Amino acid sequence: MSGPLDPLIKAIARLPGLGPRSARRIAIHLLTKPEPSLTALIDALQNAKEQIINCSTCGNLDTLDPCRICQDDTRVQNKLCVVANVSDLWAVERTRAFKGQYHILGGVLSALDGIGPDDLTLGLLLERVQSGAYTEVILALNATVDGQSTAHYISDKIMDLVALAGDQDSGEDAITITRLAHGVPVGGELDYLDDGTITTALKSRSSV
Amino acid sequence: MSGPLDPLIKAIARLPGLGPRSARRIAIHLLTKPEPSLTALIDALQNAKEQIINCSTCGNLDTLDPCRICQDDTRVQNKLCVVANVSDLWAVERTRAFKGQYHILGGVLSALDGIGPDDLTLGLLLERVQSGAYTEVILALNATVDGQSTAHYISDKIMDLVALAGDQDSGEDAITITRLAHGVPVGGELDYLDDGTITTALKSRSSV
Repeated sequence: MSGPLDPLIKAIARLPGLGPRSARRIAIHLLTKPEPSLTALIDALQNAKEQIINCSTCGNLDTLDPCRICQDDTRVQNKLCVVANVSDLWAVERTRAFKGQYHILGGVLSALDGIGPDDLTLGLLLERVQSGAYTEVILALNATVDGQSTAHYISDKIMDLVALAGDQDSGEDAITITRLAHGVPVGGELDYLDDGTITTALKSRSSV
Repeated sequence: MSGPLDPLIKAIARLPGLGPRSARRIAIHLLTKPEPSLTALIDALQNAKEQIINCSTCGNLDTLDPCRICQDDTRVQNKLCVVANVSDLWAVERTRAFKGQYHILGGVLSALDGIGPDDLTLGLLLERVQSGAYTEVILALNATVDGQSTAHYISDKIMDLVALAGDQDSGEDAITITRLAHGVPVGGELDYLDDGTITTALKSRSSV
């Protein structure tokens, strides 16, 4: 019976995290509430479509290219934080604990989803690392199987680059590759944590 | 850090069932996936905004006024099903068990939410009932406190109308007011049902 609303419901149901039922609810909300909500949504989408672009350096979404982060001279220039996607960049930025540069991969390697090295911005990352601008590369990827294998892959590739550069010149431009610490989340209760996390936290224990 | 995307994220987060986190995810999805998904959504919203209207008879959403259901001559003309909103109409239509007319209230009475009789299409409903076109009014409202008090309120109002009409003329136009049956849902297990439902189902038991 939703016939005339079907195109709208289908377009909404295609968004991540929404199914046919929540899409129906949203479509009805937009069409029965006072019209401003629908107009406001269309305007917001239209503006975003026209103004938001990908930063050609790091891959961030912004109205500027290079983006605000890449343009910001007050940030540390020689630390590069590699994240899988824009939401991970935002998650790191929210902490205010990192004030360096970013590189967005556009995903992680995944045999199941058919995502190989060519589907990510790995070439661009290696170019940036090869430029010699960075002394540390922080691999801030998810602690999942795919995230960690991607981290290993990138780390191997950067090692190769560094070894190659070391052969050619004096090799004083050593790059440190780091990853986020694994362990008990702040506020986490041992009873509710999985064995893998507790094992890792035990292995990486530090003296008080 | 989501600065430039903030207007879009806020517009999305205002939709029912979505919060800031899911709105961020949707905004990033729309802006990082190949552009057609964003354009398709804008087009679908724009088309809906231009074409979908409220049926002036029953309140249904359609591209036509009167809507397809009100225009359909093959449907039973003298049974009126009163529902709270468009999604309830669709839910009843999906069953294919009712082939009559509809009336959408636009919500239910709710003291907590400050929704009184004037916020619903009660006046229109009473006019339709008074026209004498219907012999049965089915109150298909939620089995919640608000839904049931709305049903009682409507039923009282219709009774008043019928009594008034009975005083004036011979009163042969009797209207039956019915409500949906309460009981154990099909496929429901007693062990998982609340006491109220089981009590109601026991009271309304029927002989096999």
